[in-house]
Amino acid sequence: MSALTIGLLGFGTVGKGVYETISKHQGRLQAIFGKEVKVSAILVKNVSKHSVPDDDVLLTDDFQEIIELPKLDVVIDAIVGREPGYTYLRQAILRGCHVITANKEMFAFHGSELARLAKEHNVSLGFEATVGGGIPIIQTIKQLLNANKIERIEGILNGTSNFILTSMREENLSFEEALKIAQEKGYAEADPKNDIEGYDAFFKAVVLSELVFGKAPAQETSVREGITDITIEQIRMADSLGLKFKHVASIEREKDAIRCTVKPVLTAEAHPLYRVEGVQNAVSIDADIVGNISLQGPGAGMFPTASAIIEDLIHVGRTDIPSVFEEGKSEWTVLDEPVWIIWGDANAGLPEGCEIISKVSKDVFIFKASLEAVSLLDTSDLKAYQVLGDYAPAVKENKQVQTV
Amino acid sequence: MSALTIGLLGFGTVGKGVYETISKHQGRLQAIFGKEVKVSAILVKNVSKHSVPDDDVLLTDDFQEIIELPKLDVVIDAIVGREPGYTYLRQAILRGCHVITANKEMFAFHGSELARLAKEHNVSLGFEATVGGGIPIIQTIKQLLNANKIERIEGILNGTSNFILTSMREENLSFEEALKIAQEKGYAEADPKNDIEGYDAFFKAVVLSELVFGKAPAQETSVREGITDITIEQIRMADSLGLKFKHVASIEREKDAIRCTVKPVLTAEAHPLYRVEGVQNAVSIDADIVGNISLQGPGAGMFPTASAIIEDLIHVGRTDIPSVFEEGKSEWTVLDEPVWIIWGDANAGLPEGCEIISKVSKDVFIFKASLEAVSLLDTSDLKAYQVLGDYAPAVKENKQVQTV
Repeated sequence: MSALTIGLLGFGTVGKGVYETISKHQGRLQAIFGKEVKVSAILVKNVSKHSVPDDDVLLTDDFQEIIELPKLDVVIDAIVGREPGYTYLRQAILRGCHVITANKEMFAFHGSELARLAKEHNVSLGFEATVGGGIPIIQTIKQLLNANKIERIEGILNGTSNFILTSMREENLSFEEALKIAQEKGYAEADPKNDIEGYDAFFKAVVLSELVFGKAPAQETSVREGITDITIEQIRMADSLGLKFKHVASIEREKDAIRCTVKPVLTAEAHPLYRVEGVQNAVSIDADIVGNISLQGPGAGMFPTASAIIEDLIHVGRTDIPSVFEEGKSEWTVLDEPVWIIWGDANAGLPEGCEIISKVSKDVFIFKASLEAVSLLDTSDLKAYQVLGDYAPAVKENKQVQTV
Repeated sequence: MSALTIGLLGFGTVGKGVYETISKHQGRLQAIFGKEVKVSAILVKNVSKHSVPDDDVLLTDDFQEIIELPKLDVVIDAIVGREPGYTYLRQAILRGCHVITANKEMFAFHGSELARLAKEHNVSLGFEATVGGGIPIIQTIKQLLNANKIERIEGILNGTSNFILTSMREENLSFEEALKIAQEKGYAEADPKNDIEGYDAFFKAVVLSELVFGKAPAQETSVREGITDITIEQIRMADSLGLKFKHVASIEREKDAIRCTVKPVLTAEAHPLYRVEGVQNAVSIDADIVGNISLQGPGAGMFPTASAIIEDLIHVGRTDIPSVFEEGKSEWTVLDEPVWIIWGDANAGLPEGCEIISKVSKDVFIFKASLEAVSLLDTSDLKAYQVLGDYAPAVKENKQVQTV
C-alpha cells in the first residue's frame, strides 16, 4: 500500500520535532492510518546548512520541487511569518493537499481565507498548533461549541512573557534581567519584540476570535500592550496585595463586535490564570451552559507543538471545518466597574466618577471605575492595571500597611 | 422532516438539566441536526410525583413503553446505580438506538461490554458525562491519544470530598461540620458514603482506565480510601508546611497491570491539583509527547452535566468507539521514593530503609520511602500521606518551627 506522503515546510525547532515524532512513533501512526506515514520532502532556506535525515528525503530550498512531487497528501507549515507561508498553503490546497499549520501570524491574517478555500477543495485544515502549543485548545473549543455558546476567553498565550513576569516576581529581577535569562534559556528570540510587546499573543487571540465568534476582533476597540513597562517595585507592591501581574489576552463579544485585549493585568488568587507560572500557557473559557473550563499545559517547545501537529494529522481527511453558531445577541454583560490599581499621583487625575476603595500608599490606589473612564486617564503620569478575579482588598489592609 | 427522537431515563437533577437544555437551545440543535430534537418520553419511578413538561411527552414508569415507541433514535441514561441502567441500555443498543450515559457506577462495571455491543450494532455510545461533569475530559483524552501515549492520570474527580477538604482548611471546620454544610448546600447526599469514601471517584477512575489503557485497574494493587480520617489538626499542620490535602484518584500503568489509587494525599504548590478548590474537578494528564496537560471545571451540577450529554448528542451517528493503543512496554518509571508526611510516633515504627528528611514536631515527620515500604506500616498507630508535586521541605523549616 502506498504511504501517506508529507511535505514539511521548515526544519527549525518545530519542523525537527514533527520529523522526529513521525519517525519515532511510526508504529502508532501506521496502526491508525493502515499505511506508512512518510515525510518525503523538507523545505529549508539553505540546503547546505542542513543534513538530510534520511537518504530518501528530498531536502530543497525550492517549494516548487515539493508542490510538483508526483504524490503529496499533506503539507505541514512549520515556518514563520505571513509570507511565503500563505502562498505555499494556498498552492497546496489548490493542488488538493490537506494542510496543517503552526504559523500563528500567517493564520491570524489569512486563516478565514484558507478555511474557505480548504472547504471548497474538500481538504482538511489543521491549526491546533497555532494556539497554546501542545494544549488541545482548538479541539476543546470545537467540542464545547457543539453544546455551548462561548461568552469569553481569557488566556496566557505567550510563554516567554509569562516566564519573564514569573522570574521577576520569584527571583526579584528587573525586566531586563529576566528577559536576559529568557534569552539564555532559548525562550526568547534575540529580537524579543513579538513576545514582550504582545504581538504573538494577539495573533493567537485573533485565531481564537475567528474560531469562536466567526470573525476577527474589531480594530478600533482592540488593545495590544506589552509588559516592558512593568517594574519590580510594582510587582512587589502587587504581591503585598495578594495579586500577580499576568499578561492576559481576552476575547469577548461586545455588542456587535469582538473586543480583543492583550495587556498586563493583575490577577487575584480566585482567578483561573493566577497560578499559571513560567513558560506554561493556559486558557479560561466561559461558556453559557457549562460555565468555566480552564486548560493548562506547555505552550511551546519542540515536542508539545509536534504533538498538536500530529493530532491534526490524524484528522486529515476529515473535512469538518469548524462550525460557528449563528451570530446572536450577546446574553451576558460586561462587569460595569472592575477594580483597578493605579500607580502615580492619583489625586491629580483619577477618572471621573471612580470610587476609591483603598489608598495603599501615597501613590498607589485601589479603585472601581468603568473601562471607559480609565481609558481617558493621562498615562504619562498614571498607570492603571485591571484586577481579574474576585478581590476584596479590605481583607488585606493590615498586610498592606505592614508592607508599604 | 421527522425529528431526532430521544428517550430520557430519569428526571432528577441531571435529567431535568438535559430536558431544559434541549428545550432552551432548540434553535442551535436544529441548526446542527437539520431537524427538530425532541424528548419524546421520560422514564420516572413514580409518575404521580412529576408533572409532564409538555403535553406531547410520554411520562411513564415502564421502560417497555419507551423501548417499544415506533420511533426512538437516542436513549439518554440519567439514572443512578448499576441496574436497571445496564439492562435498559443493552436493550436500547439491541434495538439500534444510540445511547448516552451519565451513570458512572453502571459504566464502570459494564462500560466495556456496552462499547463492544455498540460497535457490533453500529450505534454510538457517549459517556462524557460519567467523568468530570462539564469538563470535556473524555474528548480531550481521545484527542491526546491520537498522538500521545498517556502515562498517568491524576484527578480530583469528586467535588463533594474536595468541597469538604477545602471548607475544613479555609473555614477551620471539623470533618463533620464541613460535611453538614456540603449536605445543606446539596453537594452531598443524605448518605454521603459514595463521595467521602471514594467510591464515586473510583468508578470514574475505572472509566478513565478503560479509555486510556484499554482495561480496568487490577484489583490486587488498587486502593480506595476515603477522607473521613482527616482531622483539622492535620490540615493545619499541612498548611504550615505549604501543603494541601486533596482526595486524588491516580491511574497509572505498572508493569503489565493498571494501578488505580483513590486516597487523600498532600499536594505541593507546584502540583497541578494544588489549586483546585471547592466543588471543582480537575485532571492532570501526563502524556509521552506533549508532557503535562491539566483541565479544570465544574465536576457536577445540572447544566454542566447536561452540557456534556448534549456534546455527546452532537456526536450521535459517529461510531468511532474510542480506540486504544496496542498494549506495549511501559516507557516510564514510577518515582522510586516519594516524599511522605507521617503522623504518629514515627520513631516506633518507621518503614525500613526510609530516609527522614525533617522532624516537624514530636509526632510529625517528613521522610522518603518507597510505596512498598509505606504499605507495611502499622496504620493503627501511624498515618502516612504521600506528597505530590516538587516539595523541598528544608526551605520551609523556619516556618515549621514557628508554627508547631
